[in-house]
Amino acid sequence: MTLQEAINSIVPADQECQRRAEARLDRLTKPVRSLGRLEELAARYVAMTRDEAPKLPRASIFIMVADHGVASEGVSAYPSAVTAQMVLNFLRGGAAVNVLAGHAGAEVRVVDVGVAHDFGTVPGLIARKLAPGTRNFLVEPAMSRTQAEAALTVGVELAESAAREGLAVIGTGDMGIGNTTASAAITAVMTALPAARVTGRGTGLDEQALTKKIAVIERALALHHPDPTDPIGVLAAVGGFEIAGLAGLILGAAAHRMPVLLDGFIAGAAALIAAQLQPHSKEYMIASHLSVERGHLPALDRLGLKPLLNLDLRLGEGTGACLALSLLQASLKILTSMATFQEAGVSERDR
Amino acid sequence: MTLQEAINSIVPADQECQRRAEARLDRLTKPVRSLGRLEELAARYVAMTRDEAPKLPRASIFIMVADHGVASEGVSAYPSAVTAQMVLNFLRGGAAVNVLAGHAGAEVRVVDVGVAHDFGTVPGLIARKLAPGTRNFLVEPAMSRTQAEAALTVGVELAESAAREGLAVIGTGDMGIGNTTASAAITAVMTALPAARVTGRGTGLDEQALTKKIAVIERALALHHPDPTDPIGVLAAVGGFEIAGLAGLILGAAAHRMPVLLDGFIAGAAALIAAQLQPHSKEYMIASHLSVERGHLPALDRLGLKPLLNLDLRLGEGTGACLALSLLQASLKILTSMATFQEAGVSERDR
Repeated sequence: MTLQEAINSIVPADQECQRRAEARLDRLTKPVRSLGRLEELAARYVAMTRDEAPKLPRASIFIMVADHGVASEGVSAYPSAVTAQMVLNFLRGGAAVNVLAGHAGAEVRVVDVGVAHDFGTVPGLIARKLAPGTRNFLVEPAMSRTQAEAALTVGVELAESAAREGLAVIGTGDMGIGNTTASAAITAVMTALPAARVTGRGTGLDEQALTKKIAVIERALALHHPDPTDPIGVLAAVGGFEIAGLAGLILGAAAHRMPVLLDGFIAGAAALIAAQLQPHSKEYMIASHLSVERGHLPALDRLGLKPLLNLDLRLGEGTGACLALSLLQASLKILTSMATFQEAGVSERDR
Repeated sequence: MTLQEAINSIVPADQECQRRAEARLDRLTKPVRSLGRLEELAARYVAMTRDEAPKLPRASIFIMVADHGVASEGVSAYPSAVTAQMVLNFLRGGAAVNVLAGHAGAEVRVVDVGVAHDFGTVPGLIARKLAPGTRNFLVEPAMSRTQAEAALTVGVELAESAAREGLAVIGTGDMGIGNTTASAAITAVMTALPAARVTGRGTGLDEQALTKKIAVIERALALHHPDPTDPIGVLAAVGGFEIAGLAGLILGAAAHRMPVLLDGFIAGAAALIAAQLQPHSKEYMIASHLSVERGHLPALDRLGLKPLLNLDLRLGEGTGACLALSLLQASLKILTSMATFQEAGVSERDR
């Protein structure tokens, strides 16, 4: 499946399926809609997948990893070397996402889309490197249009092979020193908000470094004038390989009617790109949590998504998606395993 | 252990243990505090239990069940018969709490503290009935002071035997048609807020029935003038057997240094009683979620607790506690299973 084929094959979620799921939920032994967003989640899952008696879905977190040329401007609290070091940590199972994916019963897949390090052959690493990091977008476009399309295609292909393997839910993950800067730039363009409104402290910048980060984004946007109606152009100008990869992953998942658990701010930027390429892709997105990163809420608002969790997370990696996966599983068990009023012999309401 | 012994034996959570847990969390391969409330939860757990290398705790949801005389005033959308019917549904595993407890790996224990139905001998039911429901507190006190103390003692004893069995975490659950009315009355007394500010729609009242429910509470409070500094008197005047039982459960758990996952609004009312009897008990409480029921937030504010989840739940039974248990387990796995910067060879921050 090519990128364009993925975009063309995305259809709206099935409202009839959703209504039937809601009707079943209303017959279960609890006051109507008393499980709130858990019920909404189960009904949306059925609308996305058209599976009205869902089994517990096999899920994988795809951690897309890449480096960022703009990191040389001092926009992160950590050195770029951490990107590659964390890839090895993911593969050894020592990172937060490994622990939380294990807790939720999800697999973890680590994808090198553009890390500035030669890993050689490393067991478990999905090697799809397009370049050793983006270029510094304060000076020149982060990547070529061809590279942006190639990174989107990596995501589409990974989603397609996941669907073929029987995975039913995809969670987004990301790692890349500098990627909150690229994501803030994308979010500013796609929401038409000033950089200062969508730029946060990332891994933990102080006030002075945050001011500098905002200035870097403002200057980059003034240099490239990215056009929000041309999302591939936006990626090329100020994006990142992992962000483009995630946008492709979202589109590929939606094309295969697979729900996508968006993690945090980086996923939000990728989702804005995906939604511009195909608005119906939003119907397959689940906002796992609200990040501390201040641009996340405007991004979710723009996407029309309401986060499930708000736990002051700002780590990325897919950690929030893992926590939301557990809620999704819980919601499906409610739909399929509770007794109805009739089965349980429980009286229904009398007013 | 008597009620008074439980109250006397509750000591503050251990701040030194908490600081050591925080220091360990800061050495793990993630930006400092980037897992937000998950890290806070793990550190609080260590402070409560003094166990600095916690294994996954065995947990049980205690569903305290009782009927309410005030239900005859038409304050619920469901008939009182549902209380007993739901007990049987819990024991057969068909209710929402069974499904969600199973998802989180928690046990479920069902305690009849005052159901208006003779169950005879039912396997699995913990029979601690004090009376077949409370009296109608619009007319007379809900129970005697002796009964209130007996119900508190049931909770203390259940927590004590849970600790002896090796349970390490307790979740509160409740069932009782009419119990949001009793909980709103207690919350109004303990927060000194007007009944209208803390009374909600329960299982789903319309506007007219809600107005009536508020009036019932106002009249009851005018009749009994409960004194917030005498929490046992408050329970006797406008409480419920399951609410008193939960207050005792909380105190008993705290006495044994066991964290208590408070479910929703009913648990909030019980927690207000427990906190008045022993303020240090608050240090063992975890607010699982924010209920739709409007009195819940003032109750949590009064307790100084911030809810983990906000999923528009209004079911009770312990469903929210089950969802929060999964977050607690995740937080402990983060504390104990992640690699440190040193172990993983990952560079630390450079500013």
